[in-house]
Amino acid sequence: MTELSDADFAACITALTGDDTPRVWSLIVTLFGDLAQAPGAEISSPALSRIFAPIGIKPQALRVALHRLRKDGWIDSRKSGRSSLYRLTPSGLEQSAAATPRIYAREVAAPALWHVLLPAPMPQPELAETAEALAARGYQPLTRGVFLGRGPVPGDCAGFFALAGPAPVLPDWLKSQFGPGDLAAAYRALHGRLDRVAALLPQGVTPGPLETATLRMLVVHSWRRLLLRHPDLPADFFPEGWPGADCRALTHRLLDRLPRPEPCALEPAPAEG
Amino acid sequence: MTELSDADFAACITALTGDDTPRVWSLIVTLFGDLAQAPGAEISSPALSRIFAPIGIKPQALRVALHRLRKDGWIDSRKSGRSSLYRLTPSGLEQSAAATPRIYAREVAAPALWHVLLPAPMPQPELAETAEALAARGYQPLTRGVFLGRGPVPGDCAGFFALAGPAPVLPDWLKSQFGPGDLAAAYRALHGRLDRVAALLPQGVTPGPLETATLRMLVVHSWRRLLLRHPDLPADFFPEGWPGADCRALTHRLLDRLPRPEPCALEPAPAEG
Repeated sequence: MTELSDADFAACITALTGDDTPRVWSLIVTLFGDLAQAPGAEISSPALSRIFAPIGIKPQALRVALHRLRKDGWIDSRKSGRSSLYRLTPSGLEQSAAATPRIYAREVAAPALWHVLLPAPMPQPELAETAEALAARGYQPLTRGVFLGRGPVPGDCAGFFALAGPAPVLPDWLKSQFGPGDLAAAYRALHGRLDRVAALLPQGVTPGPLETATLRMLVVHSWRRLLLRHPDLPADFFPEGWPGADCRALTHRLLDRLPRPEPCALEPAPAEG
Repeated sequence: MTELSDADFAACITALTGDDTPRVWSLIVTLFGDLAQAPGAEISSPALSRIFAPIGIKPQALRVALHRLRKDGWIDSRKSGRSSLYRLTPSGLEQSAAATPRIYAREVAAPALWHVLLPAPMPQPELAETAEALAARGYQPLTRGVFLGRGPVPGDCAGFFALAGPAPVLPDWLKSQFGPGDLAAAYRALHGRLDRVAALLPQGVTPGPLETATLRMLVVHSWRRLLLRHPDLPADFFPEGWPGADCRALTHRLLDRLPRPEPCALEPAPAEG
């Protein structure tokens, strides 16, 4: 096993961040979702500083972002000696847990049945509310006032027309609606960047725990940013040649090369007495 | 077997026409659809006069309506001695044949599968054209831009989202859209009128062929006028207590009591030589 050289680590970071200046709070959300969902998991302020420093994020910017996330109720902190220990709040934990299956799924399974749901004709503001409530239950709008759900018709859909069946017929206009061209281009660009990182991380080269934390954070962050811009649907719902599945596979290949470090491995060794 | 008395025949006609003045051309369409769909079937002008006279329709009004239907390409005529013989044109025959299954069906069968069809979002004028084309293929609009068809997804629905399945869930707003209250009231009124006719035509009383032609025409006409005001869907697509099925059953009970006369039985006996 060889350690990852500083130059290659830096090259990985350049490949992953590109010209972007990722928002720090959003990276923190990714990091905690990736490493600190276990009950009681905490990350200290020195560890956070060391994870963010290689990306060029100053302690001051980190402090501002942590403050914002605390105010938003996403993370909480407690003092420990001269540093602070940060953890997800129950609400932050819940929201992380809700996003985790989609972000880390190795494939999107197609259910045996789908169903179409049709609310009564209603004015736009009411329809927007209905659409929001249905989206929260995983429904996908198809056209105005028509929603697609997974599985059989649920028992509690009084007031809706509903029809369930297998394997919908998917026209090109709908595929382009789910997977627009600019998103395909963004996926292809990400694929190129992940490819570069994969080349810098050949089998046998092992980054340290802090480097791993930084790299995982950047990989997961880039992936989830694109993933969450389109609906969670199987490959045949997207245009021909859609690069989502390839990008997903490459993301997982990289994450498999960067096994999640234990949070304690991120902390500085206690000063000897 | 007793003949139907003139008074009871007149009472039947009053019950069936009520306060309506039915449009003569529309009655002629019903009559030819009922009696003259066989190849070569013709009805003479004297027979038509005798079928329409009991309803109070004068020969002049009949001539005007026949003229209009000839101009519209629905019927054609040829001279035969001093009278004319009328028959459906190929186009009139085709349109009659198209309406016949629905009008004379003893029940509306539910298919094992239904499918929902969704065209791409498009401006209203284009959507109206699409809706018209789909209606001609038997599709039922559910809400704006959503269409319900019988059976599995057809092979030629490129450009549409489609999902097929059994037994849709039908909300009340959709049932009321298919079967509005005023139509239910009209069905109930027709049921009352048909009941009166049934009472005037007890088992054993047999109207003559011309009386039968007149009565069948009025029964079928009243029935199809209401029937064609709502979509051709099974009973569970309509509101609870929907009177369509009862009215259909009573219509058929009456038509069974009034077997279709042969067109030749409507013609005056040839003058003896």
